[in-house]
Amino acid sequence: MRKIAIFGPGLLGGSIALKLRALGGWHIGLWARRAAALADLRARGLADLVSSDIEEIACDADLVVLCVPIEAMGALAREIARFIPSRCVVTDVGSVKGCVDAELAPIFAGKCRYVGSHPMAGKAEAGIAAAEAGLFAGTNCIITTPDADVQAFWETLGCRVVTMSAREHDECVALISHLPHLVAGNLVRAVAEKNARAFAVVGPGFRDTTRVASGPPELWTGILQANRAAVLDALDAMLAKLTDFRQTLAQTDNEEQLHQALAEAKQMRDSIWPVPPR
Amino acid sequence: MRKIAIFGPGLLGGSIALKLRALGGWHIGLWARRAAALADLRARGLADLVSSDIEEIACDADLVVLCVPIEAMGALAREIARFIPSRCVVTDVGSVKGCVDAELAPIFAGKCRYVGSHPMAGKAEAGIAAAEAGLFAGTNCIITTPDADVQAFWETLGCRVVTMSAREHDECVALISHLPHLVAGNLVRAVAEKNARAFAVVGPGFRDTTRVASGPPELWTGILQANRAAVLDALDAMLAKLTDFRQTLAQTDNEEQLHQALAEAKQMRDSIWPVPPR
Repeated sequence: MRKIAIFGPGLLGGSIALKLRALGGWHIGLWARRAAALADLRARGLADLVSSDIEEIACDADLVVLCVPIEAMGALAREIARFIPSRCVVTDVGSVKGCVDAELAPIFAGKCRYVGSHPMAGKAEAGIAAAEAGLFAGTNCIITTPDADVQAFWETLGCRVVTMSAREHDECVALISHLPHLVAGNLVRAVAEKNARAFAVVGPGFRDTTRVASGPPELWTGILQANRAAVLDALDAMLAKLTDFRQTLAQTDNEEQLHQALAEAKQMRDSIWPVPPR
Repeated sequence: MRKIAIFGPGLLGGSIALKLRALGGWHIGLWARRAAALADLRARGLADLVSSDIEEIACDADLVVLCVPIEAMGALAREIARFIPSRCVVTDVGSVKGCVDAELAPIFAGKCRYVGSHPMAGKAEAGIAAAEAGLFAGTNCIITTPDADVQAFWETLGCRVVTMSAREHDECVALISHLPHLVAGNLVRAVAEKNARAFAVVGPGFRDTTRVASGPPELWTGILQANRAAVLDALDAMLAKLTDFRQTLAQTDNEEQLHQALAEAKQMRDSIWPVPPR
């Protein structure tokens, strides 16, 4: 029986617990600070141990997963490091890896292994109420150090694991997660400003394009701040593409250029998610 | 038994035929030009009559639905108008209404009623192979002239009908359909240019945000050209929001402003598609 300690279970940590519960063979400890969260976790019956006592949850763990917001990870990690056994592996699910690695690696150095993780799973709903055992099935999970145990853990949950440096991770997620988030949010805001009556006739295209804008603002404010430099670079690339596209659209003889840009985008996206041919 | 004539059935026209077939009570005529398309339509068995003869399909129709690309509508409408009975109502499913209304209304004036329609239904796959009877269920359909028959027709298919002028339609769809399309496409292109390795770690957020970019480039080139002025206005509003957001993100003391922008976007989107509370 392996022991996992999940700190701050929300959508991701709760989904980990649900999946391991379904698989069996794991002793699951959940840590939360607030009394209401503890009572909720106990009522859900998805763990062997629920506690606000860091020592009680961490002292015998084989695997620790930090699921608290990235701003809160350092302080919590310093507490956990006091009690953790040397055989333990610590990982986290933070959406930004450079700053988290820089803060957490020194805390666990000489005590136990620390490996950064970022499972690319999620949905608009946040919190443990939205957790589901199948959340990770078929999703990508990035780890920032090659580690057979952490890789096997995510594969157990159904992930495909990709190893890349924290720096390259941050550049990639700025492009495929943080930029899409701020683009979706500003798309909603642009429509509202120009003609809010348009909201009355939206279709499935607008629904999907803006889906991520329903994510928790406090979480995303922290993510954008923590990955600011890479997000600014990504946003500049997006602004350049849109500005070029505007120039093309404003010309009268633009059919070939418009078609080429749209066909290029379709080809790139279809290479990731193939669309059945007509 | 009412007679419907669908010209150029693809995803939308095919889905209309499938739904009416399931409901019963309709004689369904399908028109296509090419021999291969006619053979395919016949093989699917979703119509009472399949023909490339405009007169044969149009001469006894109670309702004509034009589903060809907007560039092709004028020429086809002039042919149809030669054979159409005066009791007939003509509508279309074009994604832009100003230019279509301007072209089609004079062609049918004094011959029969013409009412522009735009069902806000779709998916990334195009063509009749992707058609499904439930495509319109719960979707919005805009009509550009109040008309009880056309309204009842779309409601039969499961649509919620909204009436607005062709001009307001074009402004609204520029915002909630055409702008999202070019934003999604340019998001894919920006990522590819900055770091194509990011495509290897995409998650469900990027998948949904870019879904519409897999639509047919030839169709979307025509749509963007036909609604150019309104799309340029919408794109300028988007560029202004993104430029403002960039300025905020580049500052150090930006937590409150970032949170406010993201919370505003979430609130607006949740007002359309509510997200269960945490």
